[in-house]
Amino acid sequence: MRPEGTLVLKRSEIAALLGLDECMAAVEQAFRLYAEGKTAPPGILGLPAGDGGFHLKAALLDTGRPYFAAKTNANFPANMKRFGLPLIQGVIVLCDGESGYPLALMDSMEITIIRTGAATGVAAKYLARQESRVATICGCGNQGRISLKALVRARPLTHAYAWDIEQEQARRFAVELSEELGIAVEAVQDLGGAVGFSDICVTCTPSKRPFLQQQHVRPGTFIAAVGADGEDKQEIDSELLSSNKVVVDLLDQCASIGELHHALARGLISKAYVHAELGEIIVGKKAGRASGDETIIFDSTGTALQDVAATAIVYERAVKSGAGTVLNLAA
Amino acid sequence: MRPEGTLVLKRSEIAALLGLDECMAAVEQAFRLYAEGKTAPPGILGLPAGDGGFHLKAALLDTGRPYFAAKTNANFPANMKRFGLPLIQGVIVLCDGESGYPLALMDSMEITIIRTGAATGVAAKYLARQESRVATICGCGNQGRISLKALVRARPLTHAYAWDIEQEQARRFAVELSEELGIAVEAVQDLGGAVGFSDICVTCTPSKRPFLQQQHVRPGTFIAAVGADGEDKQEIDSELLSSNKVVVDLLDQCASIGELHHALARGLISKAYVHAELGEIIVGKKAGRASGDETIIFDSTGTALQDVAATAIVYERAVKSGAGTVLNLAA
Repeated sequence: MRPEGTLVLKRSEIAALLGLDECMAAVEQAFRLYAEGKTAPPGILGLPAGDGGFHLKAALLDTGRPYFAAKTNANFPANMKRFGLPLIQGVIVLCDGESGYPLALMDSMEITIIRTGAATGVAAKYLARQESRVATICGCGNQGRISLKALVRARPLTHAYAWDIEQEQARRFAVELSEELGIAVEAVQDLGGAVGFSDICVTCTPSKRPFLQQQHVRPGTFIAAVGADGEDKQEIDSELLSSNKVVVDLLDQCASIGELHHALARGLISKAYVHAELGEIIVGKKAGRASGDETIIFDSTGTALQDVAATAIVYERAVKSGAGTVLNLAA
Repeated sequence: MRPEGTLVLKRSEIAALLGLDECMAAVEQAFRLYAEGKTAPPGILGLPAGDGGFHLKAALLDTGRPYFAAKTNANFPANMKRFGLPLIQGVIVLCDGESGYPLALMDSMEITIIRTGAATGVAAKYLARQESRVATICGCGNQGRISLKALVRARPLTHAYAWDIEQEQARRFAVELSEELGIAVEAVQDLGGAVGFSDICVTCTPSKRPFLQQQHVRPGTFIAAVGADGEDKQEIDSELLSSNKVVVDLLDQCASIGELHHALARGLISKAYVHAELGEIIVGKKAGRASGDETIIFDSTGTALQDVAATAIVYERAVKSGAGTVLNLAA
């Protein structure tokens, strides 16, 4: 069957099509397929440019139908000040995995945010203590919002602390998320105090210097380290990472652009120190949490597997609902 | 200045905007900037899929304005038989190199064909004998057509031989190109005979087995080896390559996916054997042709530098002329 054209989807159209629940299920399945050897390792490519750079992530995934997706994301930290543009911008090309036909072109923002939050939720489901009630969110932007939404789906949270360098951001986050999720969300300035009371901590800031130390964390905490997805980014002190159980999304990718990268560079641990890739835990090849006292860090660099999984959902729903603009690019 | 949206361009719109003359000038300039160290090395990423695969090429280039382009091309040899779809399909994402804003999304076919032909023309300008009159084109598809068009711009050709496994293709090519270019183009079955009478030979087939040997080639010939752009593709016998002067588009890329790859794999030569990258000859860092007797092989794998250069022309012309469809993807 020859496709009729390429579907182009805007951010708002994508937001209306991609729910967090189905994205969490799809992301879990993507990590499962990868761990079962049913899909090839994804690829990444980075090109620095001035004070920022471009990052390509690409992968194949068979979600009942074979898909390929390639995401081009630009990351320019000074964008808002210089151009009034977002820090991150990008486009995903979704192709049929068997014929290569370009099925869809999509703005990447919504998919990047939701699939990243979905991985945090899936990791919490397998690695956080069952009875986790309190979470701290470091970084109160869009990624922080989706992270907390994913956590309440994975664990019976009743309280959350919101921490951000911009206190106003944290306050707004607390008001909005309290209302939306029906749990108590409180803006805090004392990060150590908040984390010390928490069962779960998510770091999702653009930080280039570690701000979370071993002394902040009580035994048994699950930490999702989400912000570091480039070799110059870091949120977690390397000694905190190298003193606790580490689970990664993809070992090689984390070794080059994740929190793991810094601990390796300092010679604190080797790649063999890493307990597992998330998929290995999902399929049961490796054990998850061994005790309630164990602190576990999930190094989340964000994988193209997640991108394909989420993009495929959006595409299939858009086709069904008739959303977006169809253009025959080859014509 | 905030852009108004992302410009989406179809193949036919691109074909109407991109001329070979300006593309040759832009490609020459791109190789020049690269050789002068004024742009970073491009990146490539390949993901095999079934009997085909996906190839990403990305680069930055400042052509008066800083641009970044990432091309996703799918290559599925059985596509026509299986799905009635072309062998190669793809999309180029063009971004502002300073802010990352996605300026345009374009079908990749026209740009790939024209920028590849442009490199053949530029290489002939620097490496073929001045008085070259006769050329053989191996592979009479779209790439063969643009190759001959580029050659007549670089050298005073009066005759061309057209060779293809499908003889009907060669015959049609001969009729069309004779008329269009006003030179004598003749379809041939005896490749050796044709090449033996030629000053220039372009190979642009999807072959996986070498068909051009040392014995076919007379001294002084310029050979543009265009077809091989993946590690399983080969048109030029490795002994032919390793016995003559070799110029590459990008050394590392040719070492992994070009004709050079096969000669290296067989241990016939090392990377140090390669005389120059094309850009080094353009800027005069390395000498071009040393004598009329020298056979020179240009290993053309196709670079993202060419993609950015060509895509930038299309974008700027489309903006001026109002071509294409503008969509605000971030909305």
